[in-house]
Amino acid sequence: MPEAYEQSLSSQTLHELTASLNRGMFVHVRNALHNMPACDVAFILESSPVKSRMAFWQLVDSEFHGEILEELSDDVRNSILRQMMPEAVAEATEGMDTDDLADVLRSLPEQLYQDVLNSLDAQDRHRAEAALAYEEDTAGSVMNTDTVTIRPDVTVEVVLRYLRRRGEVPENTDSLYVVDKDDCLIGDVSLAGLITSQPETVIEQLMNTDLVPIPATMPETEAAQMFERHNWISAPVVNEQNHLLGRITIDDMVDIIREDAEHSMMSMAGLDDEEDTFAPVVESTQKRSIWLGVNLLTALLAATVSNFFEDVLSQLAVLAILNTIVPSMGGVAGNQTLTLVIRALALGHISESNTRSLLIKELTIGLLNGLIWAVLIAGIVGIWKQDFTLAWIIAFAMLMNMIAAGISGVTIPLILKKFKIDPALAGSVILTTVTDIVGIFAFLGTASWLLM
Amino acid sequence: MPEAYEQSLSSQTLHELTASLNRGMFVHVRNALHNMPACDVAFILESSPVKSRMAFWQLVDSEFHGEILEELSDDVRNSILRQMMPEAVAEATEGMDTDDLADVLRSLPEQLYQDVLNSLDAQDRHRAEAALAYEEDTAGSVMNTDTVTIRPDVTVEVVLRYLRRRGEVPENTDSLYVVDKDDCLIGDVSLAGLITSQPETVIEQLMNTDLVPIPATMPETEAAQMFERHNWISAPVVNEQNHLLGRITIDDMVDIIREDAEHSMMSMAGLDDEEDTFAPVVESTQKRSIWLGVNLLTALLAATVSNFFEDVLSQLAVLAILNTIVPSMGGVAGNQTLTLVIRALALGHISESNTRSLLIKELTIGLLNGLIWAVLIAGIVGIWKQDFTLAWIIAFAMLMNMIAAGISGVTIPLILKKFKIDPALAGSVILTTVTDIVGIFAFLGTASWLLM
Repeated sequence: MPEAYEQSLSSQTLHELTASLNRGMFVHVRNALHNMPACDVAFILESSPVKSRMAFWQLVDSEFHGEILEELSDDVRNSILRQMMPEAVAEATEGMDTDDLADVLRSLPEQLYQDVLNSLDAQDRHRAEAALAYEEDTAGSVMNTDTVTIRPDVTVEVVLRYLRRRGEVPENTDSLYVVDKDDCLIGDVSLAGLITSQPETVIEQLMNTDLVPIPATMPETEAAQMFERHNWISAPVVNEQNHLLGRITIDDMVDIIREDAEHSMMSMAGLDDEEDTFAPVVESTQKRSIWLGVNLLTALLAATVSNFFEDVLSQLAVLAILNTIVPSMGGVAGNQTLTLVIRALALGHISESNTRSLLIKELTIGLLNGLIWAVLIAGIVGIWKQDFTLAWIIAFAMLMNMIAAGISGVTIPLILKKFKIDPALAGSVILTTVTDIVGIFAFLGTASWLLM
Repeated sequence: MPEAYEQSLSSQTLHELTASLNRGMFVHVRNALHNMPACDVAFILESSPVKSRMAFWQLVDSEFHGEILEELSDDVRNSILRQMMPEAVAEATEGMDTDDLADVLRSLPEQLYQDVLNSLDAQDRHRAEAALAYEEDTAGSVMNTDTVTIRPDVTVEVVLRYLRRRGEVPENTDSLYVVDKDDCLIGDVSLAGLITSQPETVIEQLMNTDLVPIPATMPETEAAQMFERHNWISAPVVNEQNHLLGRITIDDMVDIIREDAEHSMMSMAGLDDEEDTFAPVVESTQKRSIWLGVNLLTALLAATVSNFFEDVLSQLAVLAILNTIVPSMGGVAGNQTLTLVIRALALGHISESNTRSLLIKELTIGLLNGLIWAVLIAGIVGIWKQDFTLAWIIAFAMLMNMIAAGISGVTIPLILKKFKIDPALAGSVILTTVTDIVGIFAFLGTASWLLM
């Protein structure tokens, strides 16, 4: 058993397989991939540049294609699907979980989508269409329809006999759902409860009726937060009439929890939806250029502000030299507040009742930061440039900008959220614009007033 | 049942409770908190400023203190523990899961720690000391010792009888562990397998021997990655001799997965470990000041570089005005690459075998970006300032800096990782220093060479 530790995939394996691939040892690679669980093959594909990724993919036994596609992140899966024939895609999706099947279909180009849908057998097509009926990113679109339901008036013994005859239950089943004659959800019974109860107990007495079902239209992010908060393994999904539609399991939610948490980080760098580390160059350049374009505009805006002060800049080169310090410090302080607020918004920690406390807190931190760094920069500039008026000017600008940073760090994401704009995506660039402009105005403005 | 949707905690509830607290309606608040699940009370506490947080805490029935502490994030928990008497802490920890108990003890100041440990009853003290024996952030420190073990030579019927006599199994039990006479782990049986098998089946035939146990010394982050990759609900923890020590459940791993993903974002803004949105002002200011201090140094470094070019700056104010554009664009482009690489490192996607491909990819993107934005900025500056030499100079500087950004975005985090420094924490500031200096040198250097 202890050698099982080594079974967990290391970067060693990745390195070795890539080397074998490059040396043309295809049979060796094929065998190695064949003996690996699907999740490990998915990991290898995600860690490989586009060229070796496709080579690995072609060496994988096509009967495992479906399982592996289920494990891949969206971007990487799409990069592979784009290279496959419709028949191959249809074949790969056979027996796939409903939610993954719908996901694959959604990511196909229109033409391929129809071709694949037509090549599916009737049952799979039916399941896919049912799942596609729910909007993307809702609970309905990530649910599975493979629930085990029972009636409230039977005994534990009857249920156990039924399950033994069935022979197996769907993966990650921790509860059976109790429904009435109209298929309305009235409770659930955990496998643990079932297994520890006396055979003659009636389900009605055993079932938990306190359960909180997830409406199919709930955004998947909210559903994931409920899983996280309540420590659920699975939860039932219902429609507005409380009819049981399916269930969501924690393994799908874990992916959403990670993606949500990563989303903020990626968005703040202007990398929205770039999940594939090895995406093609042109695609990445395109995606990133939006952000760089916006940044160019704000940089030009800051340059325009400096342009107002051309006179004082042309007389005192020292101002040009020191002009970047205050905006830079304001940007960092503001981004700290912004990041904190974006995280708190994502976790639902901010509401009307605490916005004022938060603003006061961050404003006070801004004021404290301002005082600390104003004194420090005044000392440094005073000693470096032997000019004490200049030292006071930069200290004043620092204080002003730190206060502006604290206020903007709280208010910008909240305002963006009100207008339904993702604060993680737009917050950082707007904030930096504010701290740049306030910083330059405060520094060059005061300087041209006092020194000219 | 449909009204159950409303049971899920909304910011409405938070708003209402805070209003009631401020109006002094303590009995109402106490009752509302009493009827809420522990996870919702934890959410209220995390979403409240320090003052109302302590007021809410005092209104919570002390018998629920333990459950709620288990649900809180570390920072918020510590802020509450610091205000509690040792006896109250000891009482709250009664019946707590082993991993949470150890976590609470670890976060106490030395003196309080001894006091609390002494006030625990013998059994709890024993469990706590066992958990404390494992280093923080290892699998051993997050495991629970409440496993249900069975022998391989018994039948399903015997196991079912045993479980019925037991009456219940620990929360989130999806598998029973099969151990031999020496308590060595030899396999597991899922509840689903148990429930769907014939009573006369022997466990040995039913059990899964392919399981991958987690060594107690494995870092918790790695364990969480294994859970995520293999879609586990729970996993056994063993020592080096393969003795079963306990088990880890997905609910604890979900917290770690979120924390890990958030950690990168928070670190990149210099907010390492500031989990509490409403942390006290002085504490936050202190924590954030390290980052601001480092940034001041790099801003001064950039100013020193500009200082080399005092001559050309004093003759041409237009250089001072445009001087911030190239460093700013380089910083954004570099941070995009950096963020991508930091995420890929966290997911384990980068190894020796693909570093070269990644570097070539990001270098090519840098080159493409450089060309695009060089042409654009040349056009803008040419039209704005009617100076075509200047336009060429800034275009050249832009190209150089974008290439530098691509290279640094890949190499800086990889080098930091080699030296075991967290790339998310130090990467951004080092990268910005590089793009600032390259940007200023390329722009002012070329300008002073061509224009003087």
